[in-house]
Amino acid sequence: MVASCVFCRIVAGLAPADVVREWDDVIAIRPLDPVTPGHILVIPHTHVADVGEDAFVSTHTMACAAELAAVLPDANVITSKGRAATQTVAHLHLHVVPRTTGDHLPLPWTPQQQPAG
Amino acid sequence: MVASCVFCRIVAGLAPADVVREWDDVIAIRPLDPVTPGHILVIPHTHVADVGEDAFVSTHTMACAAELAAVLPDANVITSKGRAATQTVAHLHLHVVPRTTGDHLPLPWTPQQQPAG
Repeated sequence: MVASCVFCRIVAGLAPADVVREWDDVIAIRPLDPVTPGHILVIPHTHVADVGEDAFVSTHTMACAAELAAVLPDANVITSKGRAATQTVAHLHLHVVPRTTGDHLPLPWTPQQQPAG
Repeated sequence: MVASCVFCRIVAGLAPADVVREWDDVIAIRPLDPVTPGHILVIPHTHVADVGEDAFVSTHTMACAAELAAVLPDANVITSKGRAATQTVAHLHLHVVPRTTGDHLPLPWTPQQQPAG
């Protein structure tokens, strides 16, 4: 456990979270800032930095995310590695983002429109 | 194999692709429309519709994508399930999208700016 890591603290019960699902070594929580209704973060108990650090932990966490996505008709499963990829917490987590037509989220990789003017 | 599926055809060698990596039952190819340099699609040989259809195939494909992401300093790993999530080919595939600061891709889930005026 990394005491300064918010996800480690949640896993340890030292920080509050809305836990929606628990496996032996992975938890799923609701983010504070969901981008669509039902947005969930899937987080391994073990502190690994990102999807590239530990193949076993990463794969198992991905399997849990896939299990959640399986019951959604439309969803993105996304993980970010590194700051340029928008990772903000350096503890592996996968986003399961339910999608609906017209939810006004872009394609995940649509080039960002530059400000006009 | 689904004859009408472009990814099945690529796996079978019946359609061309720029294959960058092969595992026993998964391939990695360059998409025709990369969004950043090095954008790669990771595709299982087996035709499953999406990340929710077959846990074994999905998890194994994710592990291959994680292996590719591991050597990138910054990357998103993304999969889409269903049309509202922007899935366009109904054969599971993961995007490994290298990211650099200032690449002008949005956060994958940034609400899309509405057209001005």
